[in-house]
Amino acid sequence: MEKWKFQGNQGLKSSAVSVRGVFNVLMQSISKEKEVVHLCRVDPTDNPLFSADPVAAHAVSTAAHSGNFNGYPPTFGLPQARRAIAEYLSRDLPNKLSAEDVYVTVGATQAIEIILPSVFATPGANILLPRPGFPQYETRAALCGLEVRHFDLLPNSSWEVDIDSLEALADDKTMAMVLISPSNPCGNVFTYQHLKRVAETARKLGMFVISDEVYAHIAFGCNPFVPMGVFSSIVPVITLGSISKRWIIPGWRFGWIATCDPHGIFQKTGIAANIESYMEITNDPPTFMQVQINLSQIEGIADDVDFCVKLAKEESLLILPGVIVGLKNWLRVSFGLERSAIEEGLNRLKAFCLRHAKMSQQISA
Amino acid sequence: MEKWKFQGNQGLKSSAVSVRGVFNVLMQSISKEKEVVHLCRVDPTDNPLFSADPVAAHAVSTAAHSGNFNGYPPTFGLPQARRAIAEYLSRDLPNKLSAEDVYVTVGATQAIEIILPSVFATPGANILLPRPGFPQYETRAALCGLEVRHFDLLPNSSWEVDIDSLEALADDKTMAMVLISPSNPCGNVFTYQHLKRVAETARKLGMFVISDEVYAHIAFGCNPFVPMGVFSSIVPVITLGSISKRWIIPGWRFGWIATCDPHGIFQKTGIAANIESYMEITNDPPTFMQVQINLSQIEGIADDVDFCVKLAKEESLLILPGVIVGLKNWLRVSFGLERSAIEEGLNRLKAFCLRHAKMSQQISA
Repeated sequence: MEKWKFQGNQGLKSSAVSVRGVFNVLMQSISKEKEVVHLCRVDPTDNPLFSADPVAAHAVSTAAHSGNFNGYPPTFGLPQARRAIAEYLSRDLPNKLSAEDVYVTVGATQAIEIILPSVFATPGANILLPRPGFPQYETRAALCGLEVRHFDLLPNSSWEVDIDSLEALADDKTMAMVLISPSNPCGNVFTYQHLKRVAETARKLGMFVISDEVYAHIAFGCNPFVPMGVFSSIVPVITLGSISKRWIIPGWRFGWIATCDPHGIFQKTGIAANIESYMEITNDPPTFMQVQINLSQIEGIADDVDFCVKLAKEESLLILPGVIVGLKNWLRVSFGLERSAIEEGLNRLKAFCLRHAKMSQQISA
Repeated sequence: MEKWKFQGNQGLKSSAVSVRGVFNVLMQSISKEKEVVHLCRVDPTDNPLFSADPVAAHAVSTAAHSGNFNGYPPTFGLPQARRAIAEYLSRDLPNKLSAEDVYVTVGATQAIEIILPSVFATPGANILLPRPGFPQYETRAALCGLEVRHFDLLPNSSWEVDIDSLEALADDKTMAMVLISPSNPCGNVFTYQHLKRVAETARKLGMFVISDEVYAHIAFGCNPFVPMGVFSSIVPVITLGSISKRWIIPGWRFGWIATCDPHGIFQKTGIAANIESYMEITNDPPTFMQVQINLSQIEGIADDVDFCVKLAKEESLLILPGVIVGLKNWLRVSFGLERSAIEEGLNRLKAFCLRHAKMSQQISA
């Protein structure tokens, strides 16, 4: 074997101490004599007691057959899906959400992946996480270099938040706290009064609240589920949710981020822009080719971006500047469309070049 | 407005200079007089010339109605999907792939997100990227602190790799190079001979090759598409692919990572373990509750992990130790299953506790 320079990253391995890793150790320990009973990671869909409403399968089937949902999705999700989620969540909220407050994600897991780096790359920033909690937050925080501080959930007080420990932990670099409500893994449902105290404390400490509500409406015990967004006029709230648990289709990987923020604080502080920027870097472009611009033959055009902006303005022709793929002063031309449209586009490009040609030079695009 | 401490991260914004950002500027520039022609980002599914095979919609519909695919997927994808992808890719490869060589991802975009941090967190590591290229690589590299060095694709040599610049750029911290083949954005198809030279150069430089083959088999011009995996006996190759382009269903977000590595170098160097670790941290657990262990009443058990390992061994009962959710010496009990199974589990737990009780003490779990 050659000496290869590359090697695995042990840091990643140790940051990934996980449910699954421990699960595998236990699986190797079981004796063969008894039938196994799982009181650990259970997939509810394995169980005939829990089955999805057939309307869900029907909707997916209709969408697939329609051919209308094969294309690239909009970055933040289909408008009709964002609207439906906003309306669904608004049922329980005093301040109604709009479609623009909702971002569709690949399950709540991707919502966590988006929120942490979107929000917390400020150097030295820290976030307050509950103990016990959901290890995905710790892992993602480690991957984006975010300091984690743990506040306690109190076993002898119905697993409520230890408000004193919140106050003791927070400093001027504390950006936000995470609450998992209903609690994972404790299973308790926080009361209206307690959530309000958490919101008031967060406001006092100048941080916002990330409320992980993937178990929304799955409320054991006497307390009804109250979404944290109810208190969004006290403190801005980012709610994470998914269809996995309530609709028993975790394998469909469909979740959301919702900003509950009637005072527009996420807009003002740039947090909303960060979420959108982070989501924008998960897109794919299609087939295309390259055309070099000979600037020496053109007048009054500074570079490829200027070329494309003027082309859009004068000819309503959209071509992307090469600089976005690392080639300054080239054009990036997609041609995945009808011949007639390509011809029309190239004719407009030619007309544009002729009009901007130096002297009477002809430019071949 | 209060003084909130949190604020957006400008670094993220600037790292996300993107196709979409420029596209939005152009859209704002177009005149209202002419119908718009798009020779930029085109979604092929908008076009009646390009339509997906109805067999795909039928398969999705059948799967949704079956109810067999609602549950959590295995971390690396369904075994039958991994096998199908391995067989499909192996048609063009001298060294056949097995299902275990394939990891299913949410489109090739997630494949990039997994590969870069999985492989490159070695401090000071660098990666060689093509110029022009696909900006997703630069963005993801920046997010995981990986140094990027660009080699040129040569416009006057059919956009082939500038092999000399590869050699000049690489040093002892260069872990891998990325090749987009067929090229995005150049549209050229690399020849067999050229790909072989690239493989030999990579081997000489001690780095592996990430071959982004999302445009596999979409080959304009005379050159047939050759997968980089053909040269995997020269250099280990990680192939990224998806069903988006060839099957014209980009909105379905289904891609893969395939390790083409007949000499098992990714296993030996720990790269395969890193990919798997990174994929493992994207899972969700279900509903459960907590039980505290009173170690003072039990003999011969060190902690919660030891408790759970012995419980699995002696009782074939699987319960996860609390340490994985941040609560040492507690148990994490899921109960999303039939009452009879819960009762059986709790009976075994009780028997286990009684057997390990100090003296004749009774322990209530």
